[in-house]
Amino acid sequence: MKSTREILLERRTIRKYTSDPVDENLLLDILEMGCRASTTGNMQVYSIIITKESDLKSQLAPLHFNQKMITEAPVILTFCADFNRFNKWCKLRNAEPGYDNFLSFVTAAIDALLVAQTVCIAAESNGLGICYLGTTTYTADKIIEVLKLPKGVIPVTTVTLGWPADNPEQVDRLPLNAVIHNEVYMDYENEDIELYYSEKEDRSDSKQFVKENNKTTLAQVFTDIRYKKADNVHFSNVLLQVLKNQGFFNQ
Amino acid sequence: MKSTREILLERRTIRKYTSDPVDENLLLDILEMGCRASTTGNMQVYSIIITKESDLKSQLAPLHFNQKMITEAPVILTFCADFNRFNKWCKLRNAEPGYDNFLSFVTAAIDALLVAQTVCIAAESNGLGICYLGTTTYTADKIIEVLKLPKGVIPVTTVTLGWPADNPEQVDRLPLNAVIHNEVYMDYENEDIELYYSEKEDRSDSKQFVKENNKTTLAQVFTDIRYKKADNVHFSNVLLQVLKNQGFFNQ
Repeated sequence: MKSTREILLERRTIRKYTSDPVDENLLLDILEMGCRASTTGNMQVYSIIITKESDLKSQLAPLHFNQKMITEAPVILTFCADFNRFNKWCKLRNAEPGYDNFLSFVTAAIDALLVAQTVCIAAESNGLGICYLGTTTYTADKIIEVLKLPKGVIPVTTVTLGWPADNPEQVDRLPLNAVIHNEVYMDYENEDIELYYSEKEDRSDSKQFVKENNKTTLAQVFTDIRYKKADNVHFSNVLLQVLKNQGFFNQ
Repeated sequence: MKSTREILLERRTIRKYTSDPVDENLLLDILEMGCRASTTGNMQVYSIIITKESDLKSQLAPLHFNQKMITEAPVILTFCADFNRFNKWCKLRNAEPGYDNFLSFVTAAIDALLVAQTVCIAAESNGLGICYLGTTTYTADKIIEVLKLPKGVIPVTTVTLGWPADNPEQVDRLPLNAVIHNEVYMDYENEDIELYYSEKEDRSDSKQFVKENNKTTLAQVFTDIRYKKADNVHFSNVLLQVLKNQGFFNQ
């Protein structure tokens, strides 16, 4: 059995899965572990949607930009910020909920993300592979329709889950010193940036990536192709509208 | 050695710590494990501020409503959404970053929270205890001042870390069925709410809590005392202003 340290240090994102299903009891066990994660005031203001049906996966696929994992993984988990259940409890108990505002969305999103990561680690400790889909916040409006999410519920992230059919190389990370600060934030000088990003820029896969995309620097691949300003602005407005529609913007 | 399953299922939030320090190498090892967590496009748009100095802890204490853990824990970790480092890299590499918008804040906050939870699990697997402080998003404006966070950086959550001086009982959770949905969201009927919240409401500590606070239902303790609408509205506006000031609201 691998130690938790090995599981965490050796992890890789898995994008290819075998056709084997994930046993229902194993899935429930993993979700149970996830729900022991810390939660604000023990309110548990999150929900997890488990999607396995191929028809629903096909409806979700374009909302995740047709990444293959959505239809190929046996299980799709959509983690949602959810004040709907809590609000219903309050109303049934003669209490007036005041959770229709931006702070409450952030609180519920934090809850959902701590559970999501705990579920992922629980899955990985059982030999399963996971992949996070960042597309959830881009197309939350349409995911809400497909998954029938009521007011008070917003999807925050999606995880594909299954048995690995692949053992990819571990990707690089910045040196730890690049992301930690002692006592207070020490802002970065140009020399720090050079130092911290040099290993990433010197990798052959990075150089290949720059070349394939006809760019001159790796950073330009991010700003001009992968995460463009125009897209970010568009999806920001979509997401803010989702917050309003789902009842989280009445401050 | 405990299995990951035992670590996750048996976890408790620890609010009392011994005076023993956390060894520097152990802390770095835990942070290294944390940084293997999934991150959007491998951008690592987060930073972790490690605060140990008692003067700084005293400055942070009132911003966390003087919860004792802040001054008593040997280590305080503030997890931040951080596009500042990435933006500096882009500018140094002739690339124009477009990350001054709401979506980019959410992306960076997700990154920060997945790292935070991985750090917590890594810590717990080493016998350390942790406590999340939800106050971070309430007083982000003042935490930014104390920790000298530049534009592009917003604190998202804070974790106190140390050796447990306490072995509290594990707190309750809703039944798993209350938070999971198969295929699509199944909205709650009154009978569902009754079923899912009955165990929590019937606990002697819940009943004591209602009595102490002179309320008639447990839900009222949340709506009228712990998480009041007026506070939520106030802190929503503070947090939205922080997003604007830190350069995340230009969509």
